Amino acid sequence: MSMRPDQRDIADLRPIRIQRPFPTAASGSLIISAGETIVLCTASVVEQLPGWKQNDTSGWLTAEYRMLPASTSPRSPRSDRPDGRSTEIQRLIGRSLRAVVDLDAIGPRTICVDCDVLKADGGTRTLSITGAFIALVEALHASRELFANPEKLPLRDSIAAMSVGIVEGQPRLDLCYAEDVAAEVDMNIVMTGKGCFVELQGTGEETTFSEQDLHDMLRLAKLGIAQLTELQKENLGELWPL
Amino acid sequence: MSMRPDQRDIADLRPIRIQRPFPTAASGSLIISAGETIVLCTASVVEQLPGWKQNDTSGWLTAEYRMLPASTSPRSPRSDRPDGRSTEIQRLIGRSLRAVVDLDAIGPRTICVDCDVLKADGGTRTLSITGAFIALVEALHASRELFANPEKLPLRDSIAAMSVGIVEGQPRLDLCYAEDVAAEVDMNIVMTGKGCFVELQGTGEETTFSEQDLHDMLRLAKLGIAQLTELQKENLGELWPL
Amino acid sequence: MSMRPDQRDIADLRPIRIQRPFPTAASGSLIISAGETIVLCTASVVEQLPGWKQNDTSGWLTAEYRMLPASTSPRSPRSDRPDGRSTEIQRLIGRSLRAVVDLDAIGPRTICVDCDVLKADGGTRTLSITGAFIALVEALHASRELFANPEKLPLRDSIAAMSVGIVEGQPRLDLCYAEDVAAEVDMNIVMTGKGCFVELQGTGEETTFSEQDLHDMLRLAKLGIAQLTELQKENLGELWPL
Amino acid sequence: MSMRPDQRDIADLRPIRIQRPFPTAASGSLIISAGETIVLCTASVVEQLPGWKQNDTSGWLTAEYRMLPASTSPRSPRSDRPDGRSTEIQRLIGRSLRAVVDLDAIGPRTICVDCDVLKADGGTRTLSITGAFIALVEALHASRELFANPEKLPLRDSIAAMSVGIVEGQPRLDLCYAEDVAAEVDMNIVMTGKGCFVELQGTGEETTFSEQDLHDMLRLAKLGIAQLTELQKENLGELWPL
Amino acid sequence: MSMRPDQRDIADLRPIRIQRPFPTAASGSLIISAGETIVLCTASVVEQLPGWKQNDTSGWLTAEYRMLPASTSPRSPRSDRPDGRSTEIQRLIGRSLRAVVDLDAIGPRTICVDCDVLKADGGTRTLSITGAFIALVEALHASRELFANPEKLPLRDSIAAMSVGIVEGQPRLDLCYAEDVAAEVDMNIVMTGKGCFVELQGTGEETTFSEQDLHDMLRLAKLGIAQLTELQKENLGELWPL
Amino acid sequence: MSMRPDQRDIADLRPIRIQRPFPTAASGSLIISAGETIVLCTASVVEQLPGWKQNDTSGWLTAEYRMLPASTSPRSPRSDRPDGRSTEIQRLIGRSLRAVVDLDAIGPRTICVDCDVLKADGGTRTLSITGAFIALVEALHASRELFANPEKLPLRDSIAAMSVGIVEGQPRLDLCYAEDVAAEVDMNIVMTGKGCFVELQGTGEETTFSEQDLHDMLRLAKLGIAQLTELQKENLGELWPL
Repeated sequence: MSMRPDQRDIADLRPIRIQRPFPTAASGSLIISAGETIVLCTASVVEQLPGWKQNDTSGWLTAEYRMLPASTSPRSPRSDRPDGRSTEIQRLIGRSLRAVVDLDAIGPRTICVDCDVLKADGGTRTLSITGAFIALVEALHASRELFANPEKLPLRDSIAAMSVGIVEGQPRLDLCYAEDVAAEVDMNIVMTGKGCFVELQGTGEETTFSEQDLHDMLRLAKLGIAQLTELQKENLGELWPL
Repeated sequence: MSMRPDQRDIADLRPIRIQRPFPTAASGSLIISAGETIVLCTASVVEQLPGWKQNDTSGWLTAEYRMLPASTSPRSPRSDRPDGRSTEIQRLIGRSLRAVVDLDAIGPRTICVDCDVLKADGGTRTLSITGAFIALVEALHASRELFANPEKLPLRDSIAAMSVGIVEGQPRLDLCYAEDVAAEVDMNIVMTGKGCFVELQGTGEETTFSEQDLHDMLRLAKLGIAQLTELQKENLGELWPL
Repeated sequence: MSMRPDQRDIADLRPIRIQRPFPTAASGSLIISAGETIVLCTASVVEQLPGWKQNDTSGWLTAEYRMLPASTSPRSPRSDRPDGRSTEIQRLIGRSLRAVVDLDAIGPRTICVDCDVLKADGGTRTLSITGAFIALVEALHASRELFANPEKLPLRDSIAAMSVGIVEGQPRLDLCYAEDVAAEVDMNIVMTGKGCFVELQGTGEETTFSEQDLHDMLRLAKLGIAQLTELQKENLGELWPL
Repeated sequence: MSMRPDQRDIADLRPIRIQRPFPTAASGSLIISAGETIVLCTASVVEQLPGWKQNDTSGWLTAEYRMLPASTSPRSPRSDRPDGRSTEIQRLIGRSLRAVVDLDAIGPRTICVDCDVLKADGGTRTLSITGAFIALVEALHASRELFANPEKLPLRDSIAAMSVGIVEGQPRLDLCYAEDVAAEVDMNIVMTGKGCFVELQGTGEETTFSEQDLHDMLRLAKLGIAQLTELQKENLGELWPL
Repeated sequence: MSMRPDQRDIADLRPIRIQRPFPTAASGSLIISAGETIVLCTASVVEQLPGWKQNDTSGWLTAEYRMLPASTSPRSPRSDRPDGRSTEIQRLIGRSLRAVVDLDAIGPRTICVDCDVLKADGGTRTLSITGAFIALVEALHASRELFANPEKLPLRDSIAAMSVGIVEGQPRLDLCYAEDVAAEVDMNIVMTGKGCFVELQGTGEETTFSEQDLHDMLRLAKLGIAQLTELQKENLGELWPL
Repeated sequence: MSMRPDQRDIADLRPIRIQRPFPTAASGSLIISAGETIVLCTASVVEQLPGWKQNDTSGWLTAEYRMLPASTSPRSPRSDRPDGRSTEIQRLIGRSLRAVVDLDAIGPRTICVDCDVLKADGGTRTLSITGAFIALVEALHASRELFANPEKLPLRDSIAAMSVGIVEGQPRLDLCYAEDVAAEVDMNIVMTGKGCFVELQGTGEETTFSEQDLHDMLRLAKLGIAQLTELQKENLGELWPL
C-alpha cells in the first residue's frame, strides 16, 4: 500500500497552527493553518438582522467563504459572486455554527463569519469551520455585555470539522489536495466537542462506497475531531466556554 | 408518540406515481410524484461538451433543478439564477448520477438532466434523483447508437434517493414538508440498486445527532431505497439496464 | 399549392387538449396542448402589489413566460433572465388578460400568471393566452370571497388567441413550427369571446404584406378564436363567467 | 367632441424637422423631431457579424433604442440594460428595417442602428423608425463600395412608421404623450413607401376595439406614412434609393 | 519639433461652440463641442435624495457619463453598466461640481448631471465638466424658487476643466485623440474661475514625469481654463452667478 | 494648531512593517502595514494574456484591489463586483506598476497583482502600491528564467506611494482614517525611486486648493516616498533590482 504524500500515518492530522490575535477590525480574528492550507477566520457582530428576520427578537449567524486569488497556483480568478462550490461551503459553515449557538440569547443582531482562504491545500472547508469556532468564541466574548446573560456565552457546545476519505482503497484522515483529487470517496464531518454529529457529507467521486467504508471513515474522523477540540480549548484558554 | 401528518408508519414511503412517457422534446421525460410532491424529470443528449472539457473524448452529465413558481403556495418568485439552495441541489443531482454513468462510453457529448418541481411537499431533491435516473435510462437508450457499445447502456448501477429525519425524537422515512420543517435532523441518502452509498448528507437543524440516530436513519433509508429501486425496475421494464 | 405539414386545411386548428385540474400549488392550474405544443398555465393570487402600486386599492395582474429547457430539441439552455423574446411574450400575455379583468374589483392583490412551455411546436404565445384565461377563471373563482362582489367574477369578457400567417403565399391558421419558420408573414391575434380585438401583432418576416393579406388573416383568426372560446366554455362548465 | 391638446385635426401630423448631418462618428447620423419628441438616429457599419451568424456570407442589421435620462421630466434613471419596453422597441426597429434591406447584398458585416431619444413626447418608437431609415440610407451610401453592387443601394423599398390611436372614442393620428396616456387603443404601424405593411401592432389599453376601429386607424396611418415618405425623399434628395 | 495634428500652437485651445438651449426635458441642457469632441450636458433637479442620505436636510449632486455608441468609429458597443473608465469619469465630474455647489442651500433634493458624449476626439471628461457647469447654472436658476435663498444661486465659484499632456517631449494644451494616444503624460485639471484647484490628475502613460513637466503643464492648463471661464461667462450672460 | 490623532509631526510617516514572505501560493507575497492599515499584497505570474492582447508578444500587468469584510468596523458587506471606488483604485495600482515594468521583456504573460486590505485605517491605496512593488519584484525574480534577459529584472525604476492632505488648514503626510475623513484636500502621489512622478491625484473634498497648497503637499510627499523607497530597498536586500 502506497505512502501518503507527506508520509503521515492514515490517522495523522497535519500540523495545526493558530495565530491569534491576527489584526483585523473584527472582534474575533485569527489565521489557522493545517499543513499548507491557511485560512483567515473572522467573526464580526453586526447590529442588524437579515431582511427576512426583521422585527425578530432572536439573532442570526451567517458565514461567507472565499478563496483569495493567490490561494492557488496558478492564480484563481476572483469570483464576482460565490460560485456553486463556495455557496455550498458557506452554507455549510453557517449551518454548522448555528447548531451550537443560542440565537435567542444573542438578541436581534447578526454574527458574520468570514473565512478567506489564503492558501489552499485541501480541507479548506473543514479548517474554516474549526477556525471559525474560535473566532466566534472570541467575538461572542467581546460582545457579551450585549447579550441576555453576560455571564455565560450563548453556546451549547463547541464544534470542529475534519475531512476523511478513501484513497487507493485506504481510509485516510485529513486529506491534502493531492489526496483529495485522487480520492474515491470524500467525506466532511462536523462534530461537537461532546461527540455529536452536526453535519456529515459523504460523496463518492464518480464511484460508490460501502457501509464498512462509512464506518471506517467515521472512526477516523472522530479521532481527528477530538484532537482539534483539544487544540481549540488550549488556544482559547480561559475563554473556553464550556 | 405523535402520529405522522398523513398517518403513515415511520418506515412507510408516500405513494409513488410515475407518468412516463410525459411529452416534452427531451429523449427521456417523465413526471414522478411522491404524495403531493411532483417533479418533471427530463434527460436530453446534447452534442457538445462544457467549455472546460473541450477536445476531451469522454462525455459529461450535468443537472439543473428549479422550483416552478406555482410549486408552492404562496407562489415563489421565479429566481433569475439558481439561489444557494438550488445550486446545492443541482450539484448533488449531477454528482449522484455521474457516480453510475460510464462517461468514457458515452463519448464527447453532454447529458443534460432537468428537474423542474411542479409541486413541492418535501423531498424534492431525492425524488428528483429517483426520477432523473429513469429519464436518464430512457435517454441513454434512445441514443445508444451513438455510444461505444450500442448493446450495453453505459451504466454501472442504478441509483435512487430517500430523505430520512428525526422528528419529535423519532426517526422517520420520507418526510413531507410539514415534517421537514419540524425535523431535528434531516438526512438525504443516495444509494445504488446494489446497496452502495453514493451520497449521504445529514444535517442537524440547529441541533446535533448521535451515532445511534445515524444508524437508525441509515436503516430506514435502505428500506426505502430498495422499494424505489423495485419501482424503477418495474417502470423501465425491458429498458432496465442491469 | 403545397400541403400543410400535417395535412390540415388552411382554416383548421390543431387538436386542442386541456388537462384540468393539473396538480400544482396554484389555485388555477392546467396543461393545454395544441398538436405538439404543450404549455403549463397557472394562476396564483398573491396578497401583495408591485412596488409602483403600493397603497393602491385596485389590483394587478402580471404574467411570466418561459420555455423549459426540454421543450425544444436540441435542448435550449435555461435562460437566467427573460431574453428579448420572452419579455415581449410575457408582456403580451399580461396586457391581454388585463384587458378583460376588472382590476378594481379584485382589490389590493396581484394575480400572477405563469406559462411554462413544456413542448414547443409553434404558437406557444397564443396557446399560453388561451390556457391562461382558463387558469385565471379558476383562480378567480377560488378566491372570489376576497373580492368586492363574490357573486360575480371580476371579468368583463373572455379572451383567446390565435396565430395566423402567410406561408408559400397562402394564408393559414394556427401555424406549427415548421410553418412558422417558413412564414412570409406572421400574425398573432388576441380577441374576446364577444368578438373584439385585444391585441393584433403582424410582422413581415424580412418581407411585407398587403391590405388583402391582412384581411384574409383576420378572417381566419376570427374563425379560430371562436372555436377556442367554445372549448374554453366547455372546459370551464359552470365556472364560465359570462 | 374635445379638441386635441395641440389643436391639431385628427388626421394632422405634428411638424417634422430633420437636422442632417448631425455630427457623430457614425456614417449615417441625424436628429429627427416630431413636435416635442426628438430622437438621435445613427447607422454604423461594423465589419463583424453577430456570434450566431459567424462564417455567413450575408449581413445583418441590428438596432438599439434607449431613452436618455434627460428625455423625460422628471428625469428617468439610466437603465443599465434594456428594460422590457426598450427590448420590445429595439426588436421592432431592427425587424422593420430588415424587411427592406437586402442582407445578402451587404456582405458579411453588421449595420448597427442606434436610436437615442433626446426628448420624449409620445411616438418615440415610430419616429425612431422613420429617422433610422434616413440614417440607414446615408450609411449604406457611404459604404456602397463594400457591397456586391456599388451602383445600387441594397434596399427593396423605403419604410416609415406612425402611431394612431383611439382617444375619447375618436381615432387620431400621431398621438402626443398626453393623448398616448389617455388612449383607449394604441396602434403602431410600419409601412413601406410602396404602401405595404411591415409591422402592425395594436393594443387595447385595458380595453378592446372593434373591426371598424381597426379600419379607421389603418386609414389614418396610411395618410400619415405617405407624408413621412415624402419628407424622407425630400431630405435624402439624390440619395433617395428607389 | 513636430507640428500638432491640427496645426495648433501648444497653448491653443480647440474652437469651442456651445449650443444652448438644446431641447431636452432637463432644466439645464446644452451641446458643447471642442473641435471634433461633442458632448450633450444636462442637469435635472430631482425631488429625492440618494438612499444613504435619507432624511437629510441638505442636497446632493450626482453625475453620469456615457459615450454613445456612435461617438466613435468603429462604433463602441453600448455598455450595460458603466465600465471602469466611465465610473472614474463620472465620479470625477460629480466630485468637481460638488466642490462649488452649496449643498445645504439647495435643500433635500438631488441635481443629476448627465454627460453623453456624441462624438469623441479626446478631452471628453474635461469638456463634460466645462459644459456641465453651464447646465448646472441653468438648472439652478430654473429651480431657484425651491432654494433657501432664491436671490442667490447656491454656488461658491465657477469651474472648468482642461486636459494637458506631454507629447513628443513637448507640453501641449487640450489634446485631441491622436495626441492623447501618443502622449507620454496625460493630465486633467479642474479649476475654479477664481483660480483654485479642484482636481488634478496626472498620469505617466507607461512612463514618468519630472517636477518641471508638472510645472509646465499646470501653467498651460491655467491659461486654458481662464479662457473657458470667459466663454462660460459670455454664454451664461446675466445668469452668470458670481 | 491641533495635534494629529496619533501625535505625529506633520511630516512623519506611520510605522511601516513588512512581513515577507507571507505564505500564499503566489510567487510574490507579503503583508505590509502602516500603523493600523494592513494589506496583503501578492503578485502571480499567469501564462495567459488578456483577451484584447491575444497573439501579442509583450506582456501585461493587472491589479485587483478589495477590502476584506473584516477590514472595517462595522463590517463592510462583501462587494460582489468592484464598486466605483475599488475600480478606480485597482486601475491606479495597475497603471502605476506598469509605468516601471518593461512589458516587452516579460513576454506573453500577465502579472496579476492582488491587494486585499485586511485592516483599513486610511491610505490603503498608497500602501497597496508600496507593498505591491515588493511583491512584484519577488515574483519577477522567481520567474526570471522565463524572461528575455534572466540576468536583469524587467524593471526601469522602483515605485512607492504616499497620501498627503490638508487637514485643519495644515498640510500633513500619510493621513490616517480620522484625518482622511476630516481632510479639506486629499492627494495621492506615486513616485519612482529616482524621484519622478508616476501618478498625482489631488482632490478638494467639497472645497478647493491653491498652488501653494499643492507645493506644500508635493514637498511632504517626496519626503515620505524617499523613506518608503529606503524601506523597500532594505526589505528586498539583494533582490533590489536597480
